[in-house]
Amino acid sequence: MNKVTVIGAGNGGVSMAAWLSLRGCSVSLYDKFDQALKGIKRAGGIMLRAPSTGGFAPIDTVTSDIAVALKESELIMVVTPAFAHGEVARFCAPFLTKGQKVILNPGRTAGAIEFRKTVKENNPDAQFIVAEAQSLLFACRRTGPAEAVIYKIKNHMPLAALPAQSTARALKAVIGWFPQFVAARDVLETSLMNIGAVFHPTPSLLNIGRIDAGEDFEYYMQGISPSIASVLEKLDAERVRLARAMGTKTMTVLEWLEDVYGIETGDASGIYEAVQRQEVYRGIAAPKDPYTRYISEDVPMGLVPLSELARLAGVSTPVMDSVITLAGSVHRCDYRKEGRNLHRLGLENMSVKEIRAFVTEKA
Amino acid sequence: MNKVTVIGAGNGGVSMAAWLSLRGCSVSLYDKFDQALKGIKRAGGIMLRAPSTGGFAPIDTVTSDIAVALKESELIMVVTPAFAHGEVARFCAPFLTKGQKVILNPGRTAGAIEFRKTVKENNPDAQFIVAEAQSLLFACRRTGPAEAVIYKIKNHMPLAALPAQSTARALKAVIGWFPQFVAARDVLETSLMNIGAVFHPTPSLLNIGRIDAGEDFEYYMQGISPSIASVLEKLDAERVRLARAMGTKTMTVLEWLEDVYGIETGDASGIYEAVQRQEVYRGIAAPKDPYTRYISEDVPMGLVPLSELARLAGVSTPVMDSVITLAGSVHRCDYRKEGRNLHRLGLENMSVKEIRAFVTEKA
Repeated sequence: MNKVTVIGAGNGGVSMAAWLSLRGCSVSLYDKFDQALKGIKRAGGIMLRAPSTGGFAPIDTVTSDIAVALKESELIMVVTPAFAHGEVARFCAPFLTKGQKVILNPGRTAGAIEFRKTVKENNPDAQFIVAEAQSLLFACRRTGPAEAVIYKIKNHMPLAALPAQSTARALKAVIGWFPQFVAARDVLETSLMNIGAVFHPTPSLLNIGRIDAGEDFEYYMQGISPSIASVLEKLDAERVRLARAMGTKTMTVLEWLEDVYGIETGDASGIYEAVQRQEVYRGIAAPKDPYTRYISEDVPMGLVPLSELARLAGVSTPVMDSVITLAGSVHRCDYRKEGRNLHRLGLENMSVKEIRAFVTEKA
Repeated sequence: MNKVTVIGAGNGGVSMAAWLSLRGCSVSLYDKFDQALKGIKRAGGIMLRAPSTGGFAPIDTVTSDIAVALKESELIMVVTPAFAHGEVARFCAPFLTKGQKVILNPGRTAGAIEFRKTVKENNPDAQFIVAEAQSLLFACRRTGPAEAVIYKIKNHMPLAALPAQSTARALKAVIGWFPQFVAARDVLETSLMNIGAVFHPTPSLLNIGRIDAGEDFEYYMQGISPSIASVLEKLDAERVRLARAMGTKTMTVLEWLEDVYGIETGDASGIYEAVQRQEVYRGIAAPKDPYTRYISEDVPMGLVPLSELARLAGVSTPVMDSVITLAGSVHRCDYRKEGRNLHRLGLENMSVKEIRAFVTEKA
């Protein structure tokens, strides 16, 4: 029986643990907070509702002890906010063994780079593979102490290991349970195609007055208003220019919407109209707290590394930089300093060419 | 009988024309749009309601011919949006005569500098005095084709001419009708104390989703939410640092609120709480159109010259710059290029010391 570890008992982690269990894996579920595990421990598993499957999914090991959680697992699915990746890497570092594959679901931008750097700093001899998914495979929610629901599963999900020569081995470890995963060229491709960095911080920031007020509004359908869509178009164009400068294939947000959800956007006048056509976005509520992860995760783990890579590549990103600055003013912090800047990623003083080599081949 | 010209037949201009008429002036009212003048022309004047005065105010000359409007007036009160100052200067340039005093109500930031430069470019020999008020003296509204109401008159209003050695003469021309005017040290003092640049663009931008939606909300009481107040504090601190670098006396927004409205703010925890105490702000509705003057006037004529002067003075203004950038993305334009940048103001390549001399003494 295949042993798989899931790290993080939030919406995504609990859903993924249950899904893997129902597919015959022996699952270890880890969270650093015992509180998050209590209900599942008591029930011995998770009741899952999901497309074309569901039922009670036994979870063999439910633990806040990372050594126990990692033991004998070939596959480790990290399903935490990206701002926890560094800490998860520190916790895992002493216990990672040769052949283990760590998949970040998702990496946001430069998750695999931060994860590997942090493990190596804490355990220079660690032998393992780290890879990042471009996004979370599921639209899902933890609905109770031992319950979860998966609403939708994306059709395909690019995945890349760091370096890319290990991608095939990472894929092999997950493909049995998740045929949706496909190889991306490298982590630049998965990292630069960070749609959350486009769709999350800016609409949250430009609606922060009504979020402060706890107003009920639909995040996508109302929150991405025409004025805000116009800002998103500029921001997305900066991301696309960065990808071009890095020699990385990417899609515009409009192309991505069509690709992922299969809704034609070719004749949409822009992001506002294209979003209005996505039924999948209907009913998604806006956050009611200005300290939303749409800012606190997607700025430091999305916009900051995008902006920093752009600086390295000589691409100007005034809109991204402005959102980073104002988000920091709202949250009274310095997101560029706290986030995945070039220094934290160990990419300082590297050229675009050197970064390309770094993500491709083993140093 | 003193002849006075009022330029601009909007809320402020119509109120001011009526006020001056009721104080015994012979008033010429100019607007470039005949449509704006029609009702007043037909009525022969303006019905004004105002604190401790009011009644029918005859307007002797109502014209869209600038030559006619300026003829024989010692005092010319410009009461237009700041983005019209350049055009007004071009229109006035051929007809300005020695001894005429032009007062911008208000100049926003660097209004007098732009006005004088534009007149000189169009009529190098023009002899006149230009001065700027720090803000509009009245809280007022044009309520009909020939009606206006003044709700409140500010207690005192700093005024400075360019150069400052002419301020006494400018003051002398207005003080008979408006004892509220007091001499500021120079136009840097009036220009850097631009509260509209603090209070207008940022809350409009960070509420742009609900403004797009045409939502009813109170601009100050709800629009300046805690998160937004936190951004305003950073932005105001940039303005205060700029003033210090220019050697100019200024007030923080909190000090200004106390000074102008007499409401104690010393123990307020910050801008959010201080604004909540200002009864004068209660009931002021937010704009319902994203192309609000709170952005289209206060960004290019307020934040842009503030940010540009800061660059010259070596003061960094990341929050101002971010608001300028995102406001431009919303309005699909480049406000720094269109606005009062150093080039447009003729201040390129000047040092702080040279600018101080320029605003103080005749070149």
